[in-house]
Amino acid sequence: MSAPFAPARRALPERVTLAHGGGGSAMRDLIDGVFRSAFAATDGALPAAEDQARFDLAALAAKGDRLAFTTDGFVVDPLFFPGGDIGTLAVCGTVNDLAVGGAVPVALSCAVIVEEGLQVEVLRRVAASMARAAQAAGIAIATGDTKVVARGACDKLFVTTTGIGVVRAGLHMGIDKARPGDVVLVNGLLGDHGAAILNARGDLALETAIASDCAALHGLIADLIAAAPGVRMMRDATRGGVAAVLNELAEASRVGIAVRELDLPIRPEVTGFCEILGLDPLYLANEGKLVAVVPPEDAEAALAALRAHPLGRDAAAIGRVSDGRPGRVVMETRFGGARVVDMLVGDQLPRIC
Amino acid sequence: MSAPFAPARRALPERVTLAHGGGGSAMRDLIDGVFRSAFAATDGALPAAEDQARFDLAALAAKGDRLAFTTDGFVVDPLFFPGGDIGTLAVCGTVNDLAVGGAVPVALSCAVIVEEGLQVEVLRRVAASMARAAQAAGIAIATGDTKVVARGACDKLFVTTTGIGVVRAGLHMGIDKARPGDVVLVNGLLGDHGAAILNARGDLALETAIASDCAALHGLIADLIAAAPGVRMMRDATRGGVAAVLNELAEASRVGIAVRELDLPIRPEVTGFCEILGLDPLYLANEGKLVAVVPPEDAEAALAALRAHPLGRDAAAIGRVSDGRPGRVVMETRFGGARVVDMLVGDQLPRIC
Repeated sequence: MSAPFAPARRALPERVTLAHGGGGSAMRDLIDGVFRSAFAATDGALPAAEDQARFDLAALAAKGDRLAFTTDGFVVDPLFFPGGDIGTLAVCGTVNDLAVGGAVPVALSCAVIVEEGLQVEVLRRVAASMARAAQAAGIAIATGDTKVVARGACDKLFVTTTGIGVVRAGLHMGIDKARPGDVVLVNGLLGDHGAAILNARGDLALETAIASDCAALHGLIADLIAAAPGVRMMRDATRGGVAAVLNELAEASRVGIAVRELDLPIRPEVTGFCEILGLDPLYLANEGKLVAVVPPEDAEAALAALRAHPLGRDAAAIGRVSDGRPGRVVMETRFGGARVVDMLVGDQLPRIC
Repeated sequence: MSAPFAPARRALPERVTLAHGGGGSAMRDLIDGVFRSAFAATDGALPAAEDQARFDLAALAAKGDRLAFTTDGFVVDPLFFPGGDIGTLAVCGTVNDLAVGGAVPVALSCAVIVEEGLQVEVLRRVAASMARAAQAAGIAIATGDTKVVARGACDKLFVTTTGIGVVRAGLHMGIDKARPGDVVLVNGLLGDHGAAILNARGDLALETAIASDCAALHGLIADLIAAAPGVRMMRDATRGGVAAVLNELAEASRVGIAVRELDLPIRPEVTGFCEILGLDPLYLANEGKLVAVVPPEDAEAALAALRAHPLGRDAAAIGRVSDGRPGRVVMETRFGGARVVDMLVGDQLPRIC
């Protein structure tokens, strides 16, 4: 049973107990007191005390021709970090998954799994972050579910968001659509999210904390599509970083890709700690960065549109699609050499999102 | 980034490692080798190597007037039990959440959180169960996501499914729509799921194992709606059991509800162990049972339609909506007395679904 969000009743205790996941009045109190109260401002769609949100199909069809549907689980550790928290991430991540496919985000669902003993205040802060991020993105958090497991059966809090959106009519992007000569763009500095999480875990002792780039990109993407309607594909560069996106792209489109190290926009602090720790910033996770591939004639307009948006000020053209060996990504290094940018087997960091 | 399902590549190791959640090639191998291969048969909608599933809005609008959207996390312990497993539950539970709202289920998303060290074979069995249940329900598992957390950061496996469906035009059910005189129906024996889980945990030592009633109810519900188009509301009686549904109904509709203990269809084994353990079968979780409220003139046809379906053979009228105190559920006991059936604070059993 999905839990609906309905008006608050009793004061909540300081910590979550197993009873809060039991389907009874304690669960209702938790949902009402934490989630419904926070999400009310975003929520135009949820019928009170119902288990499912409903959307008028004619109104959706007026916005585009296809419904987009995508899901993502969030297990980031720690829950709070400079630049965001698991709630911001859970909203922005799924908004971005919709937006990079050309969809205008409509609504999210939110399913949480909570460890017994978690402070209710932590849940409140996460729910408030989710509500803020959803309002900023102009979408409803329309339905949800809450489960509580015994102490030790999960680490504090996991959040799964699922998004629906409407794909703009006439847009035909796809990861298999890159052609030799196309230009590869990114909308800004790479690796900040990975670096922020590492630092928040105390694994680094940076003087200046780097903040996560966590942001919802639907507005930037709308501007990009308007400026470059022939855009071939977009993908957010999360787990596995830009390197994973480029490898998937090269493989799916049967093309080579050449990037120039000197063109990669990377914060000096991130370059610095990557050198110290032996990490490669191309593989670091981002939560507010996309890779876009545009035909050469659209590249200038696309880059200008990105740079005109607050989330694209440091946008850059980082490389080109080539007729080199299909599936291979090559980087021209700052010293003039060339190296293959392979797909990693795993991530450099677990629980990054 | 949601992970797409794409063709299998390498043999998988015996156990899941952190690299399988890292966004690199190991994750792709796990998704391809376990989930995509299992879900392929259900999956008409997923564009290869894309992060989001897409559905034609005109085709959806031809089926009804509203899009339904619902989510549910599953944390059941143990993962496998007589009558089902977490995979069956994750599909049937969300199909039922759609169906009880009058929606024809269209597709599910599947987000898993896996503990490092889980046997890949366990994931394969769960994915196979999900695929079987989805095929039986005629829906696609259309998009998904995989996260892996370190040993001890979650208990084996959690699955979150989110469903979309299309609500039949002209249907206006709601938990606030019950009226005095309406008849309360259930489609069969109550409490089997709760009893099966308890028994599978080894907390009981029953001679005959009771199997979970886990089932997708969309077909039964279609028959019920055809026979009784005036049906006021339906709700699946999961966490909190029939008692929780009746209390939510009584409160939302501002009515009283009277049920007769002698009319409750309960397996003698379930009655027996409830007596021994001091549990109340009205509060036990079900995963293939619904509560339906129908106007009195439709009651006979509705009951006949339920009983004509394989999942409704033991259907029964268990009570009536009354003009008694609004929000109060009263049970006439087998001894002729009356007692209030209150909403519990929590569940009798944690991690039941």
